[in-house]
Amino acid sequence: MLSLGIDPGTAIVGYGFVYEHNDGSLEAVHYGVIRTPAKTPMPERLHTIYSELTQLIQQYQPQSAGVEELFFARNVTTAITVAQSRGCILLALQQAGIRIHEYKPNIVKQSISGYGGADKPQMQEMVRVLLNLEKIPRPDDAADALAIAITDIHTSRYNSGYDLA
Amino acid sequence: MLSLGIDPGTAIVGYGFVYEHNDGSLEAVHYGVIRTPAKTPMPERLHTIYSELTQLIQQYQPQSAGVEELFFARNVTTAITVAQSRGCILLALQQAGIRIHEYKPNIVKQSISGYGGADKPQMQEMVRVLLNLEKIPRPDDAADALAIAITDIHTSRYNSGYDLA
Repeated sequence: MLSLGIDPGTAIVGYGFVYEHNDGSLEAVHYGVIRTPAKTPMPERLHTIYSELTQLIQQYQPQSAGVEELFFARNVTTAITVAQSRGCILLALQQAGIRIHEYKPNIVKQSISGYGGADKPQMQEMVRVLLNLEKIPRPDDAADALAIAITDIHTSRYNSGYDLA
Repeated sequence: MLSLGIDPGTAIVGYGFVYEHNDGSLEAVHYGVIRTPAKTPMPERLHTIYSELTQLIQQYQPQSAGVEELFFARNVTTAITVAQSRGCILLALQQAGIRIHEYKPNIVKQSISGYGGADKPQMQEMVRVLLNLEKIPRPDDAADALAIAITDIHTSRYNSGYDLA
């Protein structure tokens, strides 16, 4: 199964495609980030995110996708901005007919490191090991996206379909 | 000029097309709401909003669009949900090459009623009068969207282009 993990954002969206081989081993097929310039009007930035993501989906054709859930206790303005981008991400996935799951950050941590309290360097090192990479994937948003894709593969062994409204 | 006003939401998105004649009089060309069922997964609801809006844009071809800004002092979860929908709305407008403006709720009130403190029934009555309608437009979300379109026309007399990041 090929899964696409996405770490939503506005200035930077992380993505990672992870393939699960028949023996259960995992491979990072492709990963990176979509960047949008800060001074560009928001509708243009949303369009860039949507169309670059759509292009990646067409190229790699994942069966499943994991998208990190948003948590913002404090800054509602930031929450609104990132959520607008996240809406366009969900739209692109839906239009491609991909199975979509949402994951809370602590679920991703649990899935990668076995407990929810791992710090960022520990998480990144675990991602590197699980994917048999020589170096920790860069930038951070791409490593986060790969962690989400791994979580999606782990979860898909037990579930299927869209799990959260 | 034909302007499209949009009142963003997830369960219900209000829209209204208002045309400004050469003599400055305003006409409600078309208005209504896009509804999405609550129990449907969010990506499907976003897709419904995006595609119905895209269809309306293609049919009426507005030159300009006004979208209400989001304000959520309290409920971040609601803010995130509505913002995801709003992102797909901005995307549809951007893809159609329409000039987009965002308006805060109090600016819409000021533009319609001359002062920012008008209550909802006053606002709706003013919209009815300004558009020469026999009855107040229903549902409320459509009336709100028409108010935003009127604001957009008033504003476009002085401005042009995208005004807010």
